[in-house]
Amino acid sequence: MCGVFGIYGHGEAANLTYLGLHALQHRGQESAGIVTTDGKQLFAHRAMGHVIDVFPQEQLARLHGGSAIGHVRYSTAGGSFLKNAQPIAVEYSRGSIAIGHNGNLTNAERLREKLEAQGSIFQSASDTEVIVHLVARSTQRAVEDRVADALNQVEGAFSLLALSPDTLVAVRDPRGIRPLCLGIVPGSPNAHVVASESTSFDLIGAEFVREIEPGEMIVINANGLKSSRPFESKPPKLCIFEYVYFARPDSTIDGISVYEARKNLGRKLAMEHPVEADVVIPVPDSGVPATIGYAEQAGLPFEMGLVRSHYIGRTFIEPEQRIRHFGVKLKLNAISRTLKGKRIIVVDDSIVRGTTSRKIVKMLRDAGAREVHFRISSPPNKWPCYYGIDTPTRSELIASNHSIEEINSYITTDSLAYLSLEGMVSAVTASRHGEAPAPLKTGDSARRLPIAPAAEEDHKTFCHACWSGDYPIEFRGEPAVRQMRLLEA
Amino acid sequence: MCGVFGIYGHGEAANLTYLGLHALQHRGQESAGIVTTDGKQLFAHRAMGHVIDVFPQEQLARLHGGSAIGHVRYSTAGGSFLKNAQPIAVEYSRGSIAIGHNGNLTNAERLREKLEAQGSIFQSASDTEVIVHLVARSTQRAVEDRVADALNQVEGAFSLLALSPDTLVAVRDPRGIRPLCLGIVPGSPNAHVVASESTSFDLIGAEFVREIEPGEMIVINANGLKSSRPFESKPPKLCIFEYVYFARPDSTIDGISVYEARKNLGRKLAMEHPVEADVVIPVPDSGVPATIGYAEQAGLPFEMGLVRSHYIGRTFIEPEQRIRHFGVKLKLNAISRTLKGKRIIVVDDSIVRGTTSRKIVKMLRDAGAREVHFRISSPPNKWPCYYGIDTPTRSELIASNHSIEEINSYITTDSLAYLSLEGMVSAVTASRHGEAPAPLKTGDSARRLPIAPAAEEDHKTFCHACWSGDYPIEFRGEPAVRQMRLLEA
Amino acid sequence: MCGVFGIYGHGEAANLTYLGLHALQHRGQESAGIVTTDGKQLFAHRAMGHVIDVFPQEQLARLHGGSAIGHVRYSTAGGSFLKNAQPIAVEYSRGSIAIGHNGNLTNAERLREKLEAQGSIFQSASDTEVIVHLVARSTQRAVEDRVADALNQVEGAFSLLALSPDTLVAVRDPRGIRPLCLGIVPGSPNAHVVASESTSFDLIGAEFVREIEPGEMIVINANGLKSSRPFESKPPKLCIFEYVYFARPDSTIDGISVYEARKNLGRKLAMEHPVEADVVIPVPDSGVPATIGYAEQAGLPFEMGLVRSHYIGRTFIEPEQRIRHFGVKLKLNAISRTLKGKRIIVVDDSIVRGTTSRKIVKMLRDAGAREVHFRISSPPNKWPCYYGIDTPTRSELIASNHSIEEINSYITTDSLAYLSLEGMVSAVTASRHGEAPAPLKTGDSARRLPIAPAAEEDHKTFCHACWSGDYPIEFRGEPAVRQMRLLEA
Amino acid sequence: MCGVFGIYGHGEAANLTYLGLHALQHRGQESAGIVTTDGKQLFAHRAMGHVIDVFPQEQLARLHGGSAIGHVRYSTAGGSFLKNAQPIAVEYSRGSIAIGHNGNLTNAERLREKLEAQGSIFQSASDTEVIVHLVARSTQRAVEDRVADALNQVEGAFSLLALSPDTLVAVRDPRGIRPLCLGIVPGSPNAHVVASESTSFDLIGAEFVREIEPGEMIVINANGLKSSRPFESKPPKLCIFEYVYFARPDSTIDGISVYEARKNLGRKLAMEHPVEADVVIPVPDSGVPATIGYAEQAGLPFEMGLVRSHYIGRTFIEPEQRIRHFGVKLKLNAISRTLKGKRIIVVDDSIVRGTTSRKIVKMLRDAGAREVHFRISSPPNKWPCYYGIDTPTRSELIASNHSIEEINSYITTDSLAYLSLEGMVSAVTASRHGEAPAPLKTGDSARRLPIAPAAEEDHKTFCHACWSGDYPIEFRGEPAVRQMRLLEA
Repeated sequence: MCGVFGIYGHGEAANLTYLGLHALQHRGQESAGIVTTDGKQLFAHRAMGHVIDVFPQEQLARLHGGSAIGHVRYSTAGGSFLKNAQPIAVEYSRGSIAIGHNGNLTNAERLREKLEAQGSIFQSASDTEVIVHLVARSTQRAVEDRVADALNQVEGAFSLLALSPDTLVAVRDPRGIRPLCLGIVPGSPNAHVVASESTSFDLIGAEFVREIEPGEMIVINANGLKSSRPFESKPPKLCIFEYVYFARPDSTIDGISVYEARKNLGRKLAMEHPVEADVVIPVPDSGVPATIGYAEQAGLPFEMGLVRSHYIGRTFIEPEQRIRHFGVKLKLNAISRTLKGKRIIVVDDSIVRGTTSRKIVKMLRDAGAREVHFRISSPPNKWPCYYGIDTPTRSELIASNHSIEEINSYITTDSLAYLSLEGMVSAVTASRHGEAPAPLKTGDSARRLPIAPAAEEDHKTFCHACWSGDYPIEFRGEPAVRQMRLLEA
Repeated sequence: MCGVFGIYGHGEAANLTYLGLHALQHRGQESAGIVTTDGKQLFAHRAMGHVIDVFPQEQLARLHGGSAIGHVRYSTAGGSFLKNAQPIAVEYSRGSIAIGHNGNLTNAERLREKLEAQGSIFQSASDTEVIVHLVARSTQRAVEDRVADALNQVEGAFSLLALSPDTLVAVRDPRGIRPLCLGIVPGSPNAHVVASESTSFDLIGAEFVREIEPGEMIVINANGLKSSRPFESKPPKLCIFEYVYFARPDSTIDGISVYEARKNLGRKLAMEHPVEADVVIPVPDSGVPATIGYAEQAGLPFEMGLVRSHYIGRTFIEPEQRIRHFGVKLKLNAISRTLKGKRIIVVDDSIVRGTTSRKIVKMLRDAGAREVHFRISSPPNKWPCYYGIDTPTRSELIASNHSIEEINSYITTDSLAYLSLEGMVSAVTASRHGEAPAPLKTGDSARRLPIAPAAEEDHKTFCHACWSGDYPIEFRGEPAVRQMRLLEA
Repeated sequence: MCGVFGIYGHGEAANLTYLGLHALQHRGQESAGIVTTDGKQLFAHRAMGHVIDVFPQEQLARLHGGSAIGHVRYSTAGGSFLKNAQPIAVEYSRGSIAIGHNGNLTNAERLREKLEAQGSIFQSASDTEVIVHLVARSTQRAVEDRVADALNQVEGAFSLLALSPDTLVAVRDPRGIRPLCLGIVPGSPNAHVVASESTSFDLIGAEFVREIEPGEMIVINANGLKSSRPFESKPPKLCIFEYVYFARPDSTIDGISVYEARKNLGRKLAMEHPVEADVVIPVPDSGVPATIGYAEQAGLPFEMGLVRSHYIGRTFIEPEQRIRHFGVKLKLNAISRTLKGKRIIVVDDSIVRGTTSRKIVKMLRDAGAREVHFRISSPPNKWPCYYGIDTPTRSELIASNHSIEEINSYITTDSLAYLSLEGMVSAVTASRHGEAPAPLKTGDSARRLPIAPAAEEDHKTFCHACWSGDYPIEFRGEPAVRQMRLLEA
Repeated sequence: MCGVFGIYGHGEAANLTYLGLHALQHRGQESAGIVTTDGKQLFAHRAMGHVIDVFPQEQLARLHGGSAIGHVRYSTAGGSFLKNAQPIAVEYSRGSIAIGHNGNLTNAERLREKLEAQGSIFQSASDTEVIVHLVARSTQRAVEDRVADALNQVEGAFSLLALSPDTLVAVRDPRGIRPLCLGIVPGSPNAHVVASESTSFDLIGAEFVREIEPGEMIVINANGLKSSRPFESKPPKLCIFEYVYFARPDSTIDGISVYEARKNLGRKLAMEHPVEADVVIPVPDSGVPATIGYAEQAGLPFEMGLVRSHYIGRTFIEPEQRIRHFGVKLKLNAISRTLKGKRIIVVDDSIVRGTTSRKIVKMLRDAGAREVHFRISSPPNKWPCYYGIDTPTRSELIASNHSIEEINSYITTDSLAYLSLEGMVSAVTASRHGEAPAPLKTGDSARRLPIAPAAEEDHKTFCHACWSGDYPIEFRGEPAVRQMRLLEA
């Protein structure tokens, strides 16, 4: 889980990249980095922490020049060290280059072994360093050709930005698994921006132009913007999890409003799994839009029955005396007066290990709930993601090893139901076609529109491997996790 | 604006106070302090910043003993300095004492001058220091009698905690302007807790017992808990602003659920000021419950049309290039797909200066809104609070100097309406009587219950001076703001 | 142990005070504070740590105005807390005042009890707070009269600075136990400076004018500088320990160069306690001047046989495996090649607990020393100081409980000798009369001038209680250490 | 300027390396790093700052295993960035390796270009990274053979440590320009230590065994210690500047005590350049031993006429008002009473730009000096060092462009003289032969031994290029300073 942002041709490149990364902070809070160029040198700064802490004013002031790329990163199993922070910036035979990407390569280990056999040395466990080595070893001349050359050797998911002193390159892998979009800055005729999500354009006052398409490479330099397709074409496989949970609700990805998609997921969930109840409540904040959709479709009142605290830090001191459900209580609290004696539907976007859900159910029962029905706006999460979402291993995913019955029993719900795979694809697909449903003056049933099943083609458009196990990119066995030989301690 | 928490007779007094303050963090983020006692000495630590930063583990470990009081504070006009942080702990002739309070004294300046004339010296601008001096000069013997003696000399609003090596005292002023409640800790037979809001009991697993009543003093020591009424009785004047905006929605104050009160404010607002529209959206997060109430009553769809970012720090770097509505954009973003072409009702709890509201309206119009109607779940805010809420001066309050027409024009809304004073009191009062309205299976009109006008008596129960100018505690002219002669720089 | 610095009438008051305190850093490294005034308000900042860390540029910039006083402090038995940092600044009936002092009161506890009985409250264990209360309760009008009034009630040692918006007051106690001197700033006609030691004048380019005399009060305000003698006259009792160890060698105190005094102490020591040896070495850095004097007088070569590291911090990580004399090794290392096979005289200024001396002897023997003779340039330290030097209790002072024989045996020296009390006074006194001895071209015996015994009067001039137990200020029994009832934790 | 420390086979490898680096802190205060191994993985930590700040206890605890190498670094022209910190640790085809070295390569740029042409990428400007790439590309199997293979391709000065999971390698370049010595840890039979200077052995209680010889490689692994000579033999060229200024006085390098060498430099200086004077004073701290030698030889009194402050930090705030010689005053102060009216010889080890010397002369004259004679214990410094000492460029070295006359005039001395090249070599060489001169009871002339001219051979033993321009390693023209294409900002 990462976010990228790039800008070409703007006097405030570092400042706007800083703001752009801030708007992508939900995609990674572990480390942040920006590399700028003044046309001659690259200027780089990366550090652990939130964007706002990594880049105080005096730091930004040292990042000179009119073009920049930036990156925010979430910790993955490999460990959370500065060396793995991006963008990675190096010097090589043809000059200097910086690369940052969102995604994961499935043949990184094999490429790395091959490169090491040729004498390459590695300073991090990052896939990005493999790409950088391939760029350095390419026999092509132009930086964009070297990048294309390198990426033609890798397999996996990537939305990648590369910056040389004169050129900004933005590429999306042939299946388009991770999002990437293009914009312009009003009032700065030559300034272009690229980002993981459109919400970062909103913050800096840029205008969304279009998605960068699966397999497309955009090259921006003194000659303007050029689009090409350097890869063999493959069927698109957009990550549907972006809509379900990962992206910000105010982003639009591949023509689909994330907020509307979530509402439709909730509506479809209500169609598939209705239940007699008095009130529908979300697990805040990510579950709110699906809950609004569910409540609307079910004709039930929507309530913010759980309040979320926004003052939580990482190093919270736990009392020695055991407090019931302590961890969840720091984050959530139930509003007893609103829930007491009621039959409650709780809508969440996923159940990972089940421990948090179990604590939420207990908290609701302590608050006086008569019945608690959990509804999940995606199918059971059974498979790990190998394309850039940081998921637990199969043994940790409760749905990998337990039936829905068993999970229901573990989390002590009165009923538990997940959205079907078909329903999920239909709901997201429905959000693409045209605008949101026509508003009506009263809460009548007209808002409870049916959601038509998705076309066969639509099903093929998305990667839903974490629910279906249907991985679009083959690999031989479970990808070997590299035995780390060097640890930043 | 402040929050207090106290505990008597528990082995983890410092840890639980830390958690209790964390749950009250919304009442003050400027400074935090805890004073504990082991029966002989007091142990004190206060610092600027959030609870989690002020009290790392090794700091808490130095706060020994089984009783504690804590305080969180919001900066007021007087300035934001460590010296003003509470609790204030001192040595005096009869030993040591710590005092923290939420509220404001209206005769502090006169008392201070009198004390100084008698040789007292002051190290802060805090009202609390005045109280401490009065306690030190009291001729009474028992600490609770000294506290009562001191508080009988002050005028104003206070919910106060005092800690001596052997006694915890909790007092609420005769009018009960600021909240204060009492609880017990299950499994610790002698442990009592007191706090500004009941939500802090939920976090530590304590049970709510009852409100501390206006004019009541609770003394807890080795002899158990004792209640007394040391002040001349006065009509209660509970601060209604706690319900409208200040308290956490999961708290219950004086028998009224804050969340339900806010929903009823929204419902009453919909009754008083309906308007043809397609959708109702809140200004998140505080406006959400009132918006749910408005939408429910109006029979209109509720949407989270504005997304709020939770990664905002204080020292944000603003780009030199002017970005439209930059400040608001850091915090809020509109979901264009959901709002485009629609007639929108925006519900907020108040308009202070009008500048933010104006930016929100522009942001919504940029997102494609056809019409924007602002609805405020309280009356126009015209008067400053002298009892502990940090409000701007009259010249800054837009409603002090402008008609609703003028404000509507300034913030560029299609229509603007405020809840009436009568409606506000009725809505809050209605929330007290019994439970929330009976839930119904479908969104029919049965939920749109009428809210009966509040009884004459109910009107008198609340302080609503910031809207009505009807100040329950007299003072001669506007209280002189002390000319600070000493600044912590 | 503390240092004070003050300046009146200079545009860079805060900056120059910062530098002045830096030059006095050896007098206290625990906390630092500066209070300035612009003629109306006082601006204060105090914090734990070294001057350079307590006052970053932006902090200094907030300390406005043309007059300032500053303070550096060393931790004392009472504890090392921010509240005890000075200057203490308060508001009282007649305005605001800040006070900082170097010294110790012997009747502080009694005064405090009396003040508390009258209703005063205390926030620290500091003597200074007692003085501040006395100033606040004085019935005098002018600030200098209030200060004089207050100080006439205290007993003990003090060199004190007080700052009000219009006046700087500098006072030295009637016995003049602690040093205090006066200077002017060339180019700033009205600017005066006062400081504990003259070395701070050198750093800021100020010129030394004269000592402030025992019992003298200097008042500087818009009317210029005025000297008065508000106390009953007493025989002077200058602290001789300042010359032996505490002051910087480049300071001149009461007309005596500290460096020359130390050299004479070494010379006198050589006269009193000669021994057959090959080389004389100091315990660096403080023992160097006495060692030069000893070597010169003895006609023996001087060598820097012990090297001192200047990179030592407080929180050094000690290895688990026991390293011989680890603590001393971090600070000192012996130069084996220079010491091997030799008979060595080591000169130090004092032996406190004996543990460090013992380790140094072992280190020298490990380096191959044939004989090790310790010579101490002051008498055995047997008594604690009650006038501002932070000494251990009697039970910790090895010379309180052991004969010189026993100490010699404990630290395993071949011989050990201390300078006599008479010799110490003679050596320091001799340094006052005229210049240093006339230089001669060759190292002949002419430099080995006799040091005449000090006159009877000279003996009476100094306080040497820590060696003689002859305390110039009486007190009833060992001063009660206040039972702290309030701890900053 | 750097220092290295390594240890093999000790349970406290990280802790002892930390202490060893602390003792080498004078060789580099910019960054510090330690890499350890537990036989399987490497654990690395590097950061900007002093050893004590870079390695808090919890950091050291994460550096597991029984072998370690460490490095301290001084900033060089290339810039002071974390990426240039050492040891550099990487993964390559045959596993993982860490390398740290003291010295400078003269063909680094050419090697780097060659490596880049083969596809290598660089993340720093450090020579060490070049060596690491050569190791990675070697076709040898054993790590020591790969290191030897790599070092046979480089030219320049290096004392290098390499650590793989099973082996510690220590190598000194064929000319032995930089020091490196070997020791054992008493009580730990298999534990070996290596370090730039022997003083680090003293601190950890290790015993000096011998120098690692020019061109020698020591390999330590499970099979014990093995010595080999993998390079073509070359005449030794030990850096004589280590004795004059750089090393710690308590170190012994190549059989010569640094302290004794410095004293002899001073004695020789007195023989070559006597002058009528009253007193000899050092520029502390580094000039002290030479001054003792000068005074002894000249039969003149030695005085610490300049006092040095040890509280100086980097970010000192300078007052706006110009204070005379402000920069020097922060560090040094003259003792007026001791210097007034005298003819003073000041001994220093070098004059670089001349600005500091000029300020010291002014300070001495302000203190009343009648005459000031500067004596420098090395020849005029005219040439930059290309082998690891961070010297200014020729244009900044005052002696490169000015005669001694001109320098005398610039720094306003009454006379100025430098030690001759021949005298410097003779003095250092004389220190090697046997022990220090026999001590005598009185300061008679017997200590003023003649220092015989050094043998022809001795002259050839040392590198003295910075004074003579006689560079032992050829290069074509001034080595190109790499145009940095990537800056850590």
